[in-house]
Amino acid sequence: MPDLRPVLFVVGLMLAGLGVTMFVPMAVDLAYGSDSWQAFGVSGFVTSLLGAIMALTSYSPKTRLHARGAFLLTTLSWVSLAVFAAMPLFMANIGLSLTDALFEAVSGITTTGSTVMTGLDDANKGILLWRAILQWIGGVGIIVTAMAILPMLKIGGMQLFRMESSEMGEKILPRTGQLAAAIGAIYLALTMLCMIGYMVTGMGGFDAIAHAMTTIATGGYSTSDASLGGFMDNGADLVAIAFMLAGAIPFGVYLLAVRGSFKPALSDPQVRGFLLIITLLIILVTFYLWVSDVYLGKQALRLSAFNVISVVTGTGYATADYNAWGPFAVSAFFAFMFIGGCAGSTACSIKIFRYQVAFEAMRAYMFKMPRRHAVAPMRYGGKPLPDSVVYSVLGFFFLFFTCFAVVAILLSIIGLDPITAWSGAASAIANVGPGLGDIIGPTGTYQSLPGAAKWVLMIGMLIGRLEIVTALVLLTPSFWRA
Amino acid sequence: MPDLRPVLFVVGLMLAGLGVTMFVPMAVDLAYGSDSWQAFGVSGFVTSLLGAIMALTSYSPKTRLHARGAFLLTTLSWVSLAVFAAMPLFMANIGLSLTDALFEAVSGITTTGSTVMTGLDDANKGILLWRAILQWIGGVGIIVTAMAILPMLKIGGMQLFRMESSEMGEKILPRTGQLAAAIGAIYLALTMLCMIGYMVTGMGGFDAIAHAMTTIATGGYSTSDASLGGFMDNGADLVAIAFMLAGAIPFGVYLLAVRGSFKPALSDPQVRGFLLIITLLIILVTFYLWVSDVYLGKQALRLSAFNVISVVTGTGYATADYNAWGPFAVSAFFAFMFIGGCAGSTACSIKIFRYQVAFEAMRAYMFKMPRRHAVAPMRYGGKPLPDSVVYSVLGFFFLFFTCFAVVAILLSIIGLDPITAWSGAASAIANVGPGLGDIIGPTGTYQSLPGAAKWVLMIGMLIGRLEIVTALVLLTPSFWRA
Repeated sequence: MPDLRPVLFVVGLMLAGLGVTMFVPMAVDLAYGSDSWQAFGVSGFVTSLLGAIMALTSYSPKTRLHARGAFLLTTLSWVSLAVFAAMPLFMANIGLSLTDALFEAVSGITTTGSTVMTGLDDANKGILLWRAILQWIGGVGIIVTAMAILPMLKIGGMQLFRMESSEMGEKILPRTGQLAAAIGAIYLALTMLCMIGYMVTGMGGFDAIAHAMTTIATGGYSTSDASLGGFMDNGADLVAIAFMLAGAIPFGVYLLAVRGSFKPALSDPQVRGFLLIITLLIILVTFYLWVSDVYLGKQALRLSAFNVISVVTGTGYATADYNAWGPFAVSAFFAFMFIGGCAGSTACSIKIFRYQVAFEAMRAYMFKMPRRHAVAPMRYGGKPLPDSVVYSVLGFFFLFFTCFAVVAILLSIIGLDPITAWSGAASAIANVGPGLGDIIGPTGTYQSLPGAAKWVLMIGMLIGRLEIVTALVLLTPSFWRA
Repeated sequence: MPDLRPVLFVVGLMLAGLGVTMFVPMAVDLAYGSDSWQAFGVSGFVTSLLGAIMALTSYSPKTRLHARGAFLLTTLSWVSLAVFAAMPLFMANIGLSLTDALFEAVSGITTTGSTVMTGLDDANKGILLWRAILQWIGGVGIIVTAMAILPMLKIGGMQLFRMESSEMGEKILPRTGQLAAAIGAIYLALTMLCMIGYMVTGMGGFDAIAHAMTTIATGGYSTSDASLGGFMDNGADLVAIAFMLAGAIPFGVYLLAVRGSFKPALSDPQVRGFLLIITLLIILVTFYLWVSDVYLGKQALRLSAFNVISVVTGTGYATADYNAWGPFAVSAFFAFMFIGGCAGSTACSIKIFRYQVAFEAMRAYMFKMPRRHAVAPMRYGGKPLPDSVVYSVLGFFFLFFTCFAVVAILLSIIGLDPITAWSGAASAIANVGPGLGDIIGPTGTYQSLPGAAKWVLMIGMLIGRLEIVTALVLLTPSFWRA
């Protein structure tokens, strides 16, 4: 059993921070005269007090966090933040059951964006802001985790990014705390820019703030039942396109750019691969819309660009019901969920670098196959690609698809129809948000699903956000042996 | 460019053999007085002559078959057998277009069992027998390929079975020719037993022969539009259950058993894993049918056993429309297509040993993850599992799912609805036969699909039957460089 004190200490600090944050929606609710201020007040008080007690009682300056502790910390922090984040949603008397409140919180903190709430346009501002804050916290949380913790734990090939940072380690930033602060500053700056962008298109201040937070987090919670489609007339979708892309770019690239080094941004294989695939998919969907006469010209391009980027980055905003775009669109958007953005960004799913690594490995594998003694060195971004990274990446694919199939089968056992079950499973594991079909498609919600299905989806979202392996390791008995 | 002579020599011999085989359905058609005897006569003459010429002109006793030649031979033999096998179907004036005839032949020789023909109950006996013969040849062909060629080429982890055979190499059989003869004898004996089994249940001689050939080949072509469901009353389904299972067991086990060594059969990890998973799935589906009141008691068990085994082994017979068994059944049968039987059998898809290897690798991977310097040896069947096998297996999963997704997306672009596109892609790549939904489900056929979709499915079936890698290697430019 690993020493839990450093784990509990950090989780305690996080909960205390989360608790204090709850006073922001409380203040907003008070300002707008909404009832739910009390729920936020009580939850904020309880959460911050409990977090502070946890941190103080487990403080132990001499104990270091080892690998097992880091696994535990990563999973436990997302789960406990979700549980406490659900408290005000449950207490606010807005018709959410305990399951629903937890679902909304898990979907928020994992930046998935699946919702069980309707009537958003008339909902309390505090509640809407809290949903946005959860995604915003979840977004920056995953960037820091992906940059500082996952490479150290060698999760699914992420050690690839450790090599880079340890090479340039001294040059960028020496410690996680400083890294988090720098990333936080960039994240905040991008959020502000996004908000200003939305306000320029005529969006009201509150909606602009809430959407800016869920755009940069590639989260997808909206303040309207019509999602971002409700704000499209003056070009809010164009702002969203820019900042969903910005959220899916590795934040390490911004760090270097801020320090005056723009070359890495242009030569980063993830960024290049990501923008290339996005461009190709937008052209493909536009062409399809145009050929099949669903939309023409500029409108086809605009709807295609927005919805492709929304699904590939795992944001999950909708401006149109792509279920109605014909059979190809349904299958294509299903497949798009498995792509994802760049590692070290707020985007989710399998991610571009894993495809790049896997294809490079398969190229070398097939080159060697008919030539017994041939040597086929593998490269990624101009550097040699170690076998151990390839191994982790291929293992990640296997585990990702296994979890996806298990979630889908469980949802089918609960009684969901095949389209809802398989697209819901994909959407949860890939942290996208909407699924396909009439129930959970871009115009629907998860509200009407049975409680058991919501629990399965919550577990799927958490496993997906934790890059599968981080969470699964905790389920192996050997992890808990001394 | 590899020396093509030994490749063309073997393909020529195979075609000559196929041509001669065409005289069997010709004789049957003559006996039954059907018109199509001429189509078989002409095709048989052309094919055997062409094959003989190919073999004679490329005979070159001093040239050995190297790895690249073996890749070419494997793919080329399946493709050319399919092309020539289609000739009598096209010439027989039974309403099949060139595409349809090719589809039926590819589906036959790959033991897939997807059909574009209806009115089977009244079809010419020669045609029905030819379809059965194609699957029968395809079945024994894949066993010999999987035992003698794929392990040598290290296809998707199949080298695992080379180690075993090279250890016991001298003891079993020294050369491919002898191996093929021994396997052929066992295959024939099992087919005869199956035929007798069917006749005991009251099936007529012709139907019993045709079904025995497609049962042991886990192919699934039937002589009735109602598939094996049309012969269920007296227990033909129970015979099919036994022999579909027999066809999905590694034939190396039978070889050893014939020589008096039964222990390997009982301790073989593939056989044990396969029977365990089949049992669990049958229980799960039976339980589901029973709980959801679709079928009760014995009938639930019988229908569950038959259809689970039919889909998992990739046979594709139907005795009931599992589309109508509720949402879980549809999702479950979709997932079942990705399982498959044992390597070295007539069964297709991913196969049990790859799951066993992948799970063992993931166990070791997760064990090591939180312990930097831990050693986690991997084992399979009591022997150490080399990294190279794990690597090939994980790569196989990646390529399998990539091909599956590409086929599904292409089918969607052609205009198939999502259920038809994704289940059709799975069914083709996994060589199962029926898909899901109203069109290509167990009660439908592939007849009404657009021609382009049939071509995509044909390519999917061939790639699937050739264990993905064998075929894909030929598409890499580096293969063709000297």
